[in-house]
Amino acid sequence: MNDLIIRAAKGEKVERIPVWLMRQAGRILPQYRKVRNKVKDFKELVKNPELACEVTLQPVNILNVDAAIIFSDILVVPEAMGLPYLMIESKGPYFEKTIKSVKDIKKLNIVSGREDLKYVMDAIKLVKKELNGSIPLIGFAGAPWTIFAYMVEGQGSKTFSKAKKLLYTNPLISHELLTKISKSTSNYLIGQINSGADMVQIFDSWAGILSPEMYAEFSLKYISEICDEVKKNFPSIPITVFAKDAFFALQKLSKLNCNVIGLDWTMDPVESRKIIGPGKTLQGNLDPCVLYSDFSTIKKVSLKMIQNFGKHRYIANLGHGVYPDTKVDNVKCFIDTVKNYN
Amino acid sequence: MNDLIIRAAKGEKVERIPVWLMRQAGRILPQYRKVRNKVKDFKELVKNPELACEVTLQPVNILNVDAAIIFSDILVVPEAMGLPYLMIESKGPYFEKTIKSVKDIKKLNIVSGREDLKYVMDAIKLVKKELNGSIPLIGFAGAPWTIFAYMVEGQGSKTFSKAKKLLYTNPLISHELLTKISKSTSNYLIGQINSGADMVQIFDSWAGILSPEMYAEFSLKYISEICDEVKKNFPSIPITVFAKDAFFALQKLSKLNCNVIGLDWTMDPVESRKIIGPGKTLQGNLDPCVLYSDFSTIKKVSLKMIQNFGKHRYIANLGHGVYPDTKVDNVKCFIDTVKNYN
Repeated sequence: MNDLIIRAAKGEKVERIPVWLMRQAGRILPQYRKVRNKVKDFKELVKNPELACEVTLQPVNILNVDAAIIFSDILVVPEAMGLPYLMIESKGPYFEKTIKSVKDIKKLNIVSGREDLKYVMDAIKLVKKELNGSIPLIGFAGAPWTIFAYMVEGQGSKTFSKAKKLLYTNPLISHELLTKISKSTSNYLIGQINSGADMVQIFDSWAGILSPEMYAEFSLKYISEICDEVKKNFPSIPITVFAKDAFFALQKLSKLNCNVIGLDWTMDPVESRKIIGPGKTLQGNLDPCVLYSDFSTIKKVSLKMIQNFGKHRYIANLGHGVYPDTKVDNVKCFIDTVKNYN
Repeated sequence: MNDLIIRAAKGEKVERIPVWLMRQAGRILPQYRKVRNKVKDFKELVKNPELACEVTLQPVNILNVDAAIIFSDILVVPEAMGLPYLMIESKGPYFEKTIKSVKDIKKLNIVSGREDLKYVMDAIKLVKKELNGSIPLIGFAGAPWTIFAYMVEGQGSKTFSKAKKLLYTNPLISHELLTKISKSTSNYLIGQINSGADMVQIFDSWAGILSPEMYAEFSLKYISEICDEVKKNFPSIPITVFAKDAFFALQKLSKLNCNVIGLDWTMDPVESRKIIGPGKTLQGNLDPCVLYSDFSTIKKVSLKMIQNFGKHRYIANLGHGVYPDTKVDNVKCFIDTVKNYN
């Protein structure tokens, strides 16, 4: 097995820097769009283990990345808790029901890692079988604050002001909801590991819209609980935490019971390493827009990034998901630049 | 004249902390909505000096703030350069023509501070007359990168990937456009000061989507040129630079030829002061969402913020524009908390 990414996550020696891309399975690949066109919508793809497996494997073969990540969506968790959603093409997620009161929260289920979200577990099992030990498979979930934001707001938003309003006006209820999401998320991640995931990543996409204090109270607390719970069950499975735009929380993130901290492109590699210290592996952080440029720019900017991070305790990636209109050859250029680095 | 804000900006002693709100003139006030309903759209209001004057003065009387800010829009500059735009209700700005080539850039005008945007200059003159020396009037403009982003993208965007693509793929053309915007902006701000503005603020709303290096090359360079140009003409007029989400640039911002650095709510007051040093006044940075909560929470969070900033070299404000659905009484609670602080 090419276990570079696992070893890099644990701080062990690696022959070369491992590389993968957030959103590597998806719209950048014509092969993905072909599969996507077979079904009604994005969610049908997510819920069909065979097709989810197929698109998970596409970038493994086409891009030659060092890890697969299960094709899914962070919003399957709130749906399993009792809030179904629609994924509206070129608009984003939309929840018909949202959380407005304690009553709404009481009605929510806590996701079990065994019976619930079976389609994700089945997809993971299929992928593992197909990968046949060649490279590791990453499982994932949204961080409780990010899931909370969608459950209260009902859709994407620039400010998530409804969600933040609830935090400020009713911290008690907010914590109640966050606790339920956290338990669901721990169970879900543990379920993914039981099904075969070799590593898991927690995405806190809306970390950056909270103040440092609010972030500590309403997000970090729960990420920390999830890390502890997963580690209690699986001490040797690496955990990555990616808190987008949460530059202000880097020091606190470095104290989490996790192995890898994801960085977006606004965070300077050298400065971030100073703040986080030597105890964590860093992952990131090329601006996805760099992949719009020509090969020589992609190489130049990627090499500079790699040099700034250094070979030890580093996993190369973008600073966010790859943009859907990125050319596949440009993605390959990035991956090859990392792989040829010495 | 209540010149607290001018003195605070220059680092002089103040009896109490001055306070105003970004977007204080606007939808939070029922009096604004009444005026707004008299005209077809937002832009008609911006272009009508009498009405722009009226809504500029509303928060002065209703909220008792320590400064007025001229009611206008940062996108009047690209429009005066040759790219007209529509402000679509509850969607945002939309440019029919965008910048795609050198040819498009060549066709653009450089805004003069005398003949162009006369409606803004006229509005400023009217406001100054009405204020009659009671409190200072703030003029403003967008930072060149933010204006560039709209001129290339044509509308708001989560990623501004078209605009960033141009930076990466054609830095030369990008600099050409940024230079034209910068000259226009300097002229425009100088024109506003000539018309009576007592202080000016540069808004870099999309600062936070660039990497630290890209931000230095494509944004800070031009903000710096504008500060120098304005200061050359008006050494004693204070300049505020508000680069939203550009936590990574605080140290470089502290070197600008300006007086005040605006901070958003993700930036810790104490940490920011350490990075920026004692040479600048800080402005900000309450999370606008705090104003959704009850009086006691607003007071508690505001007081903590004020204590963290300290009385010297500080202008109280939100960390971003006030959200349109904020209750006026809650805004007043914030303002009174600042004013009663000792």
